[in-house]
Amino acid sequence: MGKGELTRQAILERAVALASANGLEGLTIGKLATTLGLSKSGLFAHFQSKEALEVQVLEAAAARFVDIVVKPALAAPRGEPRLRRLLELWLGWSRSQWIPGGCVFLSAAFELRERPGPARDRLVALQADWLDTLATCVRTGITNGDFRPDTDAEQVAHEFHSATLGYHHAARLLRDPLAEVRLQQSFENIVTRIRSQPGREASRPHPSLGEPAH
Amino acid sequence: MGKGELTRQAILERAVALASANGLEGLTIGKLATTLGLSKSGLFAHFQSKEALEVQVLEAAAARFVDIVVKPALAAPRGEPRLRRLLELWLGWSRSQWIPGGCVFLSAAFELRERPGPARDRLVALQADWLDTLATCVRTGITNGDFRPDTDAEQVAHEFHSATLGYHHAARLLRDPLAEVRLQQSFENIVTRIRSQPGREASRPHPSLGEPAH
Repeated sequence: MGKGELTRQAILERAVALASANGLEGLTIGKLATTLGLSKSGLFAHFQSKEALEVQVLEAAAARFVDIVVKPALAAPRGEPRLRRLLELWLGWSRSQWIPGGCVFLSAAFELRERPGPARDRLVALQADWLDTLATCVRTGITNGDFRPDTDAEQVAHEFHSATLGYHHAARLLRDPLAEVRLQQSFENIVTRIRSQPGREASRPHPSLGEPAH
Repeated sequence: MGKGELTRQAILERAVALASANGLEGLTIGKLATTLGLSKSGLFAHFQSKEALEVQVLEAAAARFVDIVVKPALAAPRGEPRLRRLLELWLGWSRSQWIPGGCVFLSAAFELRERPGPARDRLVALQADWLDTLATCVRTGITNGDFRPDTDAEQVAHEFHSATLGYHHAARLLRDPLAEVRLQQSFENIVTRIRSQPGREASRPHPSLGEPAH
């Protein structure tokens, strides 16, 4: 990476944090320049337009998401342990200092739902990728015998994702101290339903998912 | 109602629609005045500030929500039929022409999560009311024997709500043609789990929840 590319990465890191807290809508090149103490014209040289900046913010966040959620989960055994690991890692992601306002994709999802354009298109593709990752994980769990053969992998992926949306809402808006407990229980209810050997994991204590919700 | 109050109601109706499509953030008194062909000073006389406007938009939406979702559901028998009716009515609400961008509370939830103030406080209270309504409905279902005595009513309310968040995301952002099917299935999975007589309703076809997602 050249110096320009390093600068661009550092700027994007800050931009993702701002977008997490204030939304993509609130992320202007002018505001980003003020926050970073850089010139607006310098930032324009990197990003050309607000729209290009938004797409690059989503790309930067997605690259980080793959690094800290998707790739490490592959170290867990296929099937239920990997699905469980994906939840733990997602929770870590949603609380990371890198995104102080919580999952930047979920925030962007609400902002962009009625706003056609390249940022919306990119976000839809990224969310579809994430749902595919979850469904694939469920499918390997069917293949290896963890989950029932009649499990609807896409439905499970959708419910997993709905549970993370519910967590985001409970933790961020309602400041519900039980947000994490609710998420864990939602997950247990899903896996209990689809497990091929009922009760196999029922006596195992739930692994801690980390720090309390805040 | 005097003429002033009628005017205020009519303005708020339009403001809720705008907030549904563009968010509370995008709802300024100036923009509302332009949309309605009214003077900005006239609107200021009604609402004083953007913040007061936001709170009144939430109140107006909540009053409508009670009228078209909460009250009509009370006509359904207590327990599972009422919980099912709440889902049908919620879906009707989320698609009503009155809120062209979908459930205004869910959109506001994402906008206001990091923005302290009266609008956020009001939204949190309204969302807590809705979760209470759902939990109460589950509790009456435990009392009347529809649901298992060990059912965690608050957890079920949370999962119901997560399912509507997942629907909103799938229908509005992803434009997923299966969004409604996924919501129905999420609901069936919840009630199947908590039903006191397993399989009692299993052979009953799912009632149609109305028009396809859009």
